[in-house]
Amino acid sequence: MSRPPGRKQENYKISRELFVLTYGALVAQLCKDYEKDEDVNTCLDRMGYGIGIRLIDDFLAHSAVKKCRSYSETADMIAQVAFKMYLGVTPSVSCSSAAGNEFSLILDKNPLVDFVEELPAERASLCYCNLLCGVIRGALEMVHLAAEVTFLQDRLKGDAVTEIGITFLRKAEDRKHKRN
Amino acid sequence: MSRPPGRKQENYKISRELFVLTYGALVAQLCKDYEKDEDVNTCLDRMGYGIGIRLIDDFLAHSAVKKCRSYSETADMIAQVAFKMYLGVTPSVSCSSAAGNEFSLILDKNPLVDFVEELPAERASLCYCNLLCGVIRGALEMVHLAAEVTFLQDRLKGDAVTEIGITFLRKAEDRKHKRN
Repeated sequence: MSRPPGRKQENYKISRELFVLTYGALVAQLCKDYEKDEDVNTCLDRMGYGIGIRLIDDFLAHSAVKKCRSYSETADMIAQVAFKMYLGVTPSVSCSSAAGNEFSLILDKNPLVDFVEELPAERASLCYCNLLCGVIRGALEMVHLAAEVTFLQDRLKGDAVTEIGITFLRKAEDRKHKRN
Repeated sequence: MSRPPGRKQENYKISRELFVLTYGALVAQLCKDYEKDEDVNTCLDRMGYGIGIRLIDDFLAHSAVKKCRSYSETADMIAQVAFKMYLGVTPSVSCSSAAGNEFSLILDKNPLVDFVEELPAERASLCYCNLLCGVIRGALEMVHLAAEVTFLQDRLKGDAVTEIGITFLRKAEDRKHKRN
């Protein structure tokens, strides 16, 4: 099921409602498949990773962004260009470490949870939107940036906002420097 | 996981690429879950049905369409308003029965299969986009129109076009007439 080479991608849009409901069906199916929330979370992250490593081509082709020169620029790019382009929202970004490699994307609104009021009691550890973490992780890896991406806060779990944490892993940078 | 009552739906859009890849992940998961293509098809149809019965509210709220007076009008509405609104494409419609209750939606382009070149040989009976049939069936049922919705042709299977057949079932109409 590979993408045909050279086919021109048109850039038209899809209704958010259809996407959100389809995503909900995916999560519901995984909840049927896996008893443990952790397994669902892992599966969503893995699926997202697979999406991210393909989506990055589309992103680079359509966003016309330049190479980022710092983790900070990269985090801003994810929030202001990628989120806007793919989900129609723009999270705010904050740097959460003195080392300058940990960032938070704060979502006042999470477009993926529109039809979800709260998680069922028996699914309290579910990271409903974990696919997003995998997408970011996969896309970053394709531009040679290793990162850990996880939900730090989640409105679905009663937090005030939804917060995605991105920790850029120095190793990748070190490897790159060595190659150069 | 129910939708909060009265929450205003904003109408912003999602990138098609993200949707298409997420849908692909859903189908791939079901192919893992079910050995038989028929079971995957049934599951996609059932998921779509669940989406359709919820999506109809959104459709009626945002499309401002009037009540259709015939099956023909309904088929046109699905093609010209609903497909355009949710998938960004407009299939052509043809009536395929003298009785006037069978219609075909012909898709030159199927936005759901952008990253899919062809079905794997071992999945030759898979109706990759069967979710769409379920969505249409579910949405129609919520406006008291029983219908059978199936793929009649599929470019993924080598056909020249993708064709979705909608057969409106007279029973529903008969019931309606009796009530009136």
